[in-house]
Formats: sequence, structure tokens, C-alpha cells
Amino acid sequence: MSVLKKNSARQRDQERARLIWLLTTDKAVTSTLLGKLTLAEQYDVGTLADDIAEVGALVAHLPPPDLADTLEALPSEERHALWRLVQDHERGQVLLEASENVWDDLIDEMSDRDILDALQTLDIDEQIYLVQHLPRNLTGRLLASLPADERARVRQVMHYEKNTVGAIMEFGVITVRPDVTLGTVQRYLRRLGSMPDNTDKLFVTSRDKTLLGELELKTILLNSTQRRVSEVMETEPMVFSPEDDAEKAARTFERDDLVSAAVVDSVGKLMGRLTIDEIVDVVYEETDNDLRALGGISAEDDVHASVGKAVKTRWAWLAINLCTAFIASRVIDGFEHTISQLVALASLMPIVAGIGGNTGNQTITMIVRALALENIQPGNFTWLIFREMGVALINGLVWGGIMGGITWWLYDDMALGGVMMLAMVLNLLVASMMGVIIPLTMTKLGRDPAVGSSVMITAITDTGGFFIFLGLATIFLL
Amino acid sequence: MSVLKKNSARQRDQERARLIWLLTTDKAVTSTLLGKLTLAEQYDVGTLADDIAEVGALVAHLPPPDLADTLEALPSEERHALWRLVQDHERGQVLLEASENVWDDLIDEMSDRDILDALQTLDIDEQIYLVQHLPRNLTGRLLASLPADERARVRQVMHYEKNTVGAIMEFGVITVRPDVTLGTVQRYLRRLGSMPDNTDKLFVTSRDKTLLGELELKTILLNSTQRRVSEVMETEPMVFSPEDDAEKAARTFERDDLVSAAVVDSVGKLMGRLTIDEIVDVVYEETDNDLRALGGISAEDDVHASVGKAVKTRWAWLAINLCTAFIASRVIDGFEHTISQLVALASLMPIVAGIGGNTGNQTITMIVRALALENIQPGNFTWLIFREMGVALINGLVWGGIMGGITWWLYDDMALGGVMMLAMVLNLLVASMMGVIIPLTMTKLGRDPAVGSSVMITAITDTGGFFIFLGLATIFLL
Repeated sequence: MSVLKKNSARQRDQERARLIWLLTTDKAVTSTLLGKLTLAEQYDVGTLADDIAEVGALVAHLPPPDLADTLEALPSEERHALWRLVQDHERGQVLLEASENVWDDLIDEMSDRDILDALQTLDIDEQIYLVQHLPRNLTGRLLASLPADERARVRQVMHYEKNTVGAIMEFGVITVRPDVTLGTVQRYLRRLGSMPDNTDKLFVTSRDKTLLGELELKTILLNSTQRRVSEVMETEPMVFSPEDDAEKAARTFERDDLVSAAVVDSVGKLMGRLTIDEIVDVVYEETDNDLRALGGISAEDDVHASVGKAVKTRWAWLAINLCTAFIASRVIDGFEHTISQLVALASLMPIVAGIGGNTGNQTITMIVRALALENIQPGNFTWLIFREMGVALINGLVWGGIMGGITWWLYDDMALGGVMMLAMVLNLLVASMMGVIIPLTMTKLGRDPAVGSSVMITAITDTGGFFIFLGLATIFLL
Repeated sequence: MSVLKKNSARQRDQERARLIWLLTTDKAVTSTLLGKLTLAEQYDVGTLADDIAEVGALVAHLPPPDLADTLEALPSEERHALWRLVQDHERGQVLLEASENVWDDLIDEMSDRDILDALQTLDIDEQIYLVQHLPRNLTGRLLASLPADERARVRQVMHYEKNTVGAIMEFGVITVRPDVTLGTVQRYLRRLGSMPDNTDKLFVTSRDKTLLGELELKTILLNSTQRRVSEVMETEPMVFSPEDDAEKAARTFERDDLVSAAVVDSVGKLMGRLTIDEIVDVVYEETDNDLRALGGISAEDDVHASVGKAVKTRWAWLAINLCTAFIASRVIDGFEHTISQLVALASLMPIVAGIGGNTGNQTITMIVRALALENIQPGNFTWLIFREMGVALINGLVWGGIMGGITWWLYDDMALGGVMMLAMVLNLLVASMMGVIIPLTMTKLGRDPAVGSSVMITAITDTGGFFIFLGLATIFLL
């Protein structure tokens, strides 16, 4: 009886951390691996040889997903050093698990042939995914290497857009006929000898590939071998179309606790299946995109991108921000006369603008979230605006009142305090109203509400805040 | 041979949308369901009766997760109306799938007895989860209702903290001995008659519950019934401890494409298992928390919370924001003399502050993301700061140069243009440096880097921007 070897998540974490540590703390390790230095040129040959041996052992021991994560965590040069140690038959899997930024770095050194060789070990759907998304376009070469019948099927799948079920589905499905017994199914499976990953069910199809039902592995095990497939199969399974949105499919997987599900075409023929591992990737990617979008950074930016690349990926948001700040600045400039009469206005105006931006962003975050969770229906649009404006009114009166009081006390000017309070209330109302309208309008126009909403609301609350405050001051104080 | 009934994700979406539509467009439907109106009092009895019948049919047809999502999307009153239609035996499952905000609303109307009855249909781990997190504390009453031996186990599990593996693990596991044949395992499973959801593997244990290996369902089906469990079991499975962090466990599930995994105690005894459905929930919750944290809204806020509740959950961030804005305002006030000499400064200063806030937030978003993905190692801290400052320097020189030029042209004052450019460069450098330091420091102090980072960076770039710009102007322009 064998004893369980320790393979805990924690131990794997430690091995990854150790590998990163070895590669980043001593520059000589990377240099030697890249062939820039020979062992003989080193100061402390013994230690270095030990370190390099340990790096090799760790790379050999860690599975591809861990290697991909390690590559992700390394700067460019160390990435290349590590990549050289990854064995040929694991390279495809490592590439598949790594992200765009890692691809950019590693693909540089590889010829088209190298890349296609690395992909050989992968399933055809995984190969398609990679050739379509790698920074170099290898689609043609991949297609040329396939047998004619497969090429037709691959061509068909290739035109599904990113973020659809069709783009992430797998072809590896096991199908059975409805009129055989479970005993026959078991013999068939033993003959097959293996199943694709994440197979929790087989698909029951007719001769023309029409999906008739699903047969869970557990159903095969729980029922007598004499029963027929058609008697025990699930006849109302959840199915997807290749055109369905991948993020929505993920929500359905979560809702129904699915491990895999069939993808069928418009006439009900089985095309492939969706599996939970792809779905989990979709969920993480969705998160990541929302975070990036709200923070104004693009998909190509990561902590290891070069300075040049980071500048390139961020300049657009900065330019937009500069434009909106410039407009706000022109609004202030229009009130130059007012400010020169009462310089205190210059120090108070950022408070009005700032609190508006804060409120607007709170509202937008909540709405973007609710849109993602599909919690907003056409019926509650008006109600939402009124609620947000109610919240803004109360906050405006309370905090505006406090700031108004402080202003009155600081400058000994009751009218100035009153203007301060009124401006805060008005700007909060504008912020909350626009915080609802902007993301909902963007959704209606078919755009991602997370991208740019925050920049727009800040532009509006800044410009609006300055205009309201300085405008009121011009009317009531001069 | 039965024909596949349509049960596509799209159709289910439509049914949920229809249910929400029926409940929200005609107030009379909700009022009637809540017993506030009788049918006789209605204007158009025929249509109303039809609508109510359709609502009933939809509720009967939709499974609990869809009902939970529908409740989520409804305002308070409609929630109650719908809840009354949910059948007793489904209530526990619906509660389990719903979120805190829904609980708050629905629990009001229910007695302790009602709630415990609703929980009866759930597994014991699910019951524990709910009694611990429902807004009313029912832990004592649940414990009292359990048999003595189960009570001890439940007590033990209850003290695992939220966000640990222990808090989300399930007790429902099937164990087998290593020395039996696969044929015996199959007979045993048929006698059991059912398996817990998401069972893709059985756990092989010794008599004292020590985990020896895992036996995948697929292994049972692919091998001859004569083989022994010990010959075909996986002896190096990925295992978790109950103290492990749930979000980290989720990353491991993603990395290794797991569907379920064993949870073992410190001496290797099997305690329970983690399943992919809980993991997917963890991932969605993680996303949600990060989004909320960056947007400055708390977990209790949702689009259907009342105005009072929304005010309460948001006031803290507003107060903090107001304090920081007030400090920035005092910095400006300190330069009152400078501004009164050159009013143009008042309209230019928000540009310097704004661009700094934008850059700082870009950096923070990237760092928070990289921390979540564990892409930042102690080794690359210095490198990161230098990279971000390099990016800031380039952006500062380019955009600062452009803004400086525009300022020179607008005000016909070269010195003012120079001050503008210099201030932008300096504020961008401060922003990028603090954008790295703040989240990393918060992580070192054991806090969530997403919470409050954004507010802090904005405070620093505002105050810093005003101080730098007005300070430079005082030195060079007066």
C-alpha cells in the first residue's frame, strides 16, 4: 500500500517562490543559463553550480501551469533563461497557460517552426486558440499542416469572435447511442482507454449527431449495467450555442454548478463542449478586464513590461485626462475676475469638485457591478436615478452643511459658507445622476460600461463643480 | 426515444427577465400577491389574473439558483411578493444562492422556526454557512437541533475564519479502502444509490481516515473491474489544509484544472473536500470585493438597498475624501498671496493635480492586480519603482512639455509655461513612486491593498500637485 506523497498547494507555492528567488537574486544564474557567462568566469563556482542544478530540478518537477505562473512573475531576461530549461513536450502547455505578455517576450526567440512544434502536443482547439492570439500570425501555416477534413472544421470554428462560447469550446467529446446498455458503454470506455480532461458526462447523440441527452459518469456507476442509456440519461440538459457570450455562459455555469456542457448548433447538432476550466479562466479574465478598465490601464500592461511599452499603453488615458482637465481649467479661467476679487474661492473649489468625483465614482462602481450581475432591468431605471439622487441630497446637505459651517468660521463670511453648501449639494446631485446615466447609456450603445466611465464622471464633476461653485459665487458674493 | 427538450442558457435568461418584467411593470401584481389588494378591487381583472398565473408558472419552473438571481434583481417589495411563491422545500436552496442583501430583506418576515425549517433541506455544511452569515444569529438553535455526535464536528468547523478553505469545505465525501477491487467499488456505489454534487473522484483512506490517494470516477470506468483500488489510484493528489486561504485555493484550482480536492488536517486525515462550485463563488466574490474596494463602496451596498442604507454605507468614504480635500484646500490657502498676484495659477493648478491622480491610479491598479496574481516578489521591488518612475518621467516630459507650451501660448508667459512643465514632471514622479509604495506597504502590514489605496494616492497627488505648482510659482514667478 503506497503512502500519500505530499503535494499540497502550499508546497507548490513554495517551489515557485524558490525558483523565482534563485533566478532573481543572483544575476549570475540567469547569465550562465543564457550562455552569457561560463562557469569558469564565476567568482563562486560551487554555489552557482548548486543553484543552477536546483533551478533545473525545480523546472523538471513543476507542472506546466506552475511554470507559466513563474514566467509571469519574472522580468524579461529571467523569463528567457527559464524558458530555455522548459522541455520541448511541455512548451505548448506552458504557452497555453501563460498570458499575452509572456508570449510577446518568448516568441521573439523562436522560429515559426519552433512554435508550431511546441503546439504539436496540444489539442486542436488549443492550437487554434494559440495561433489566433499569439503576436505572430501562424494561422495559415497551422492550417496547411492539417489534414483536409480537419481543416474544414477548424476554418468553421476560427471565425467565432473572442468572448463567445464558440471561441472557447473544445472538440474532445465522447458520444454514445441512446439504445445501448450501460454495460456496453463501460466496455466502450475501457476500449477507448482515456477520456478528455474534465469529462463528467458523455453526450448521447443520434446517428446524425443530434444531441438527445447527456449521460453523467456517475449515472453509469450508480445504475445496473443492464439499463439502457435512454432510460437513465438526462433529457433536459443545459446547452449553449457557439454565438453565446462567454461571460454569460460563465454566470450560467456558476448558477447551475456545471462541470461541462454541450455546445449545439442552431438545429441541435452537437458541436463540442464547454468545460469548467475554460470557464474559470473566463471569470478571472473578466475580473481582470474590469479592474484594468476602471483603473485606466490596457491589457498589454503588466509589471514586467518595459518602460517603452508601459508608456505606449498608458498615454491614451493620460491624453484624455489632460483634455478634460484642460476644459475644467478653461471654466475656472472664465471666472478669473471673480477669483481675483475673492482669492479664498481658489482654495475652496477643489473640495466641491473632489467630493463630486468621489460620489460619482461610487455610483458608477455600483452600477457597473449591478450590470455585470444583470441586476438592472429596464423597469428600475427611474427608481435607481431617484434613489441615487436621494442619497446624494442627504450626503450633500450633511457634508455640505458641515463644510459650509467650517467655511463660514474660517473666513468669517456667512454668504461664502452658504455658497459652499449649495454648490456641494448641486454637484453631488449632478454626480449621482450622471453616475447612473453614463454606464447605462454605454451599455445601451453596446459598449463596456467599465471602460472610460470613471474618466467621464470625473471630467463632469470637475468641470461642473468649478462652474457651479464659481457661478454661484459670482451671483451671490460679488 | 425521447427528444431533447430545449433548456438553453438563453431561454432561462428570458424566463428570468419575463418574471422580473411581470413583477415590476404592473404594481397591481405585487400588491395582489402581497394580499394588499384583492382581485375584485382591480381595474382589469382578466389581465391581472393571467399575469399572476404566469408568475406562478415561472416560479414553479425556474430552479432555485435562477430564483435567487431574480430576487437579487428586484426591489424590496417585489422581493417579498416573489418569496411568498417559492415553495417550502426550495427555500433553503434559494437562500443559499442569494446574497446578503436579499437575506436582510427576506429574513425580516420569517420567524426563527421558519428559517430553520427552510434550512432542513440543505447539507449540514450549507446550514452552518447560512446560520453563521444570516443577519440573525441562529447558531445556538441550529446546534441544539443536531444529534450530539454531529454537534461536535460542527463546532469544530465553525471556528474556521471566513475566506479560509475550512469555511467553504463540504463534508459530503465518499471514501473507499485501497485493498478492494474496482468491481467491489462499483457494487458499493450502486448500493449507495447517489453521490454528492461535483463528485469526480472518491477518496481512498485507511481505517483511521488517513488519506492514501484519490480514485477518479473515470479511472473506475476505464479499468477492468478486477483491478485493485491501490493499483490505479492517484497517490500524489493536490490536497488543502482547512487554514489555507480560499482565494489562493481558487488560483490552484484554476492552475491545475481541479473539480474537487481533499481537505486534510495536519496529520493527513481526511476532513472533507473542496468543490469547483464553491471555488467559482469565491472567484466571483473576490472580483466583486476588489471592484467595490477600488470604487469605495462597501459590501452591504447594492442597487436595491434603501436610501438610508446607502447613505450609511457610503458616508465613511465621503468623510475621508472630504478631509483630504480639506487638507489640499489649506495648502492652496497658504499660497493665497501668490494666487492673488497671478490669478492664472488658480485655473492651471487642477491640471497638475488631476494628471498626477490619474497616473497614480494607473500604477496602483497595476500593482494591486500583480499582487493578486502573485506576480510581485521581494526581488523586483526596486526595479518596479524605477520602472514606474521612468514611465512617469517620459510621460511628464511629453505631456508636461505640451501643456507648458500651451500655457506659454495662452498667457504669453514663458516662465509660467516652464513652471507648469516642471510641476507636472515632479507630480508624476511623486504619483508613480507612491503608487508602488502604498499598495506594497499595505500588503506588508497585512491589509487589503485594494481598500483605500485609491483615496490615499488621490490625496497625495492633489496636495502634492498644488504644493509643487504653487511653490514653484512663488519661487520663480513672483
